[in-house]
Amino acid sequence: MAFELKILGSNSAAFAHNRNHTSQFLRVQNTYFLIDCGEGTQLLLKKNKVKLSKINNIVISHLHGDHYYGLIGLLSTLHLFGRKTKLRLFGPPGLKEIISIQLKYSTTTLSYDIEFTEWIPGESQEIYEDQHITVTTFPLNHRIPCSGFLFREKPKKRRINKRLVTKILTPLQINELKNKRDVYDMSGKLLYEWKTATLPPYSSHAYAFCSDTKYIPELSELLNNVNLIYHEATFTEDMSERAALTYHSTAKQAAELAKNANVGKLILGHFSTRFKDLNPILEEARTVFENSELAIEGAVFNT
Amino acid sequence: MAFELKILGSNSAAFAHNRNHTSQFLRVQNTYFLIDCGEGTQLLLKKNKVKLSKINNIVISHLHGDHYYGLIGLLSTLHLFGRKTKLRLFGPPGLKEIISIQLKYSTTTLSYDIEFTEWIPGESQEIYEDQHITVTTFPLNHRIPCSGFLFREKPKKRRINKRLVTKILTPLQINELKNKRDVYDMSGKLLYEWKTATLPPYSSHAYAFCSDTKYIPELSELLNNVNLIYHEATFTEDMSERAALTYHSTAKQAAELAKNANVGKLILGHFSTRFKDLNPILEEARTVFENSELAIEGAVFNT
Repeated sequence: MAFELKILGSNSAAFAHNRNHTSQFLRVQNTYFLIDCGEGTQLLLKKNKVKLSKINNIVISHLHGDHYYGLIGLLSTLHLFGRKTKLRLFGPPGLKEIISIQLKYSTTTLSYDIEFTEWIPGESQEIYEDQHITVTTFPLNHRIPCSGFLFREKPKKRRINKRLVTKILTPLQINELKNKRDVYDMSGKLLYEWKTATLPPYSSHAYAFCSDTKYIPELSELLNNVNLIYHEATFTEDMSERAALTYHSTAKQAAELAKNANVGKLILGHFSTRFKDLNPILEEARTVFENSELAIEGAVFNT
Repeated sequence: MAFELKILGSNSAAFAHNRNHTSQFLRVQNTYFLIDCGEGTQLLLKKNKVKLSKINNIVISHLHGDHYYGLIGLLSTLHLFGRKTKLRLFGPPGLKEIISIQLKYSTTTLSYDIEFTEWIPGESQEIYEDQHITVTTFPLNHRIPCSGFLFREKPKKRRINKRLVTKILTPLQINELKNKRDVYDMSGKLLYEWKTATLPPYSSHAYAFCSDTKYIPELSELLNNVNLIYHEATFTEDMSERAALTYHSTAKQAAELAKNANVGKLILGHFSTRFKDLNPILEEARTVFENSELAIEGAVFNT
């Protein structure tokens, strides 16, 4: 499994119907991301048995309270538990000021460092890169600066075709083949041609988190062929005017984006408190894009 | 019943053992006070069936997160529900700035007015008064400015002795008697002497909330004869050094204050996460002051 996504909370605005505010926990191989952090997220992490020590990266999509009011509490708890490891925090302008002022008045110097990266509103930028993945922001269309996040595995190398490659090779020679170079023995004799000795690489997976936004049809280009996409679906189509007015999307719109982008699976979330029963949202999306699911709290999605 | 106090949360520092951060809901006749507001308080209000419309006064003791991180979320929820009634908020310097900056970045103009009263650290001051009660701050001894709150009924008037007063009196005449004045008929003849026609007033009740603090023996004077007192008891006596170091109290110290102040009942709270079982805290207090209770979440105390 490349990605494992756990839904912690998925309701919009107010708490309702035992649903909590937006928060997700994403594992990409051995790297972990907490995505948004509504009030009470630290309790949801506990409930979902996510160890706090795993939280090394936090991305915040925007400064509406239902997406970040739990952050200062989580940072404080990590401090109380004596955390030493650096924490990377990616958020919009203003977030650092909000955190800093609260730490100032409590005269708290955190036991760990926060490496804060402020993403630039209205732009798409790579905010994180390691050996395996990149994380890129993309602008959404909400009432205040709001960003989506695209978590993408880097292109992988070709694989050795073990059925054909029977001679013992050095690690260097194996790497040469994977990098599309033929290998020779000491006398210069061809040992293996990369074309026959290797197989195409495994595909690189991607997960896109589309937080609060009006429907942006053009996103389908950027998110083309993404395996897994979360898109807000605050309303159903009968409330499309309200959706536009509040800079939110309908389930149908989310599904249209998923369909046009040819994604693997769509996860719908950020439900309006109007919906005690979420089936109308799911059903509306499935009329357009069959492989749609609800961001039910505790649900896990793999790619 | 003069006072009804509901415990919403009572744990210190981190969430643990299914215990939440400090928050209490106090009813004094028809006036309501939310006292402190740790993260998730809005959910605890819901769980305890407290109507949000009843929250007209909020007092915040200090700016450690476990006492106020839930405030911004609660204020936002009241806004989402379209509240129009003015809200009174009483807190330390810094609180207004913290709230304002978060509203600024979310570009939120609340649907209701907040009348903010900043209490002065290190001083005792009356911050609220109405027909029936006063609320007075008193300085505690914590790592940052921290205040206790004394909710006190105003002295009541004498009561008509209905057994003796058999003649029909006007409301004015009744009031005269209650205010220790004799009443006469039109011809100037004595109708009733206040001394015989009235009984002593019902006693005025008081509740004192002593948030995070080192033990302050001198408080027993201010809190003398208070009916109900909440006092933090973060530790037991075997951790008295840690208590002093962190500017907290032990259960024994809380009980000594209660005993010396001759209070009616002591409620112990702000438990360290070290205590899964709270009985050691209760037992220690009861060796000094028998009428001690634990601030168990959901518990209701009346005077």
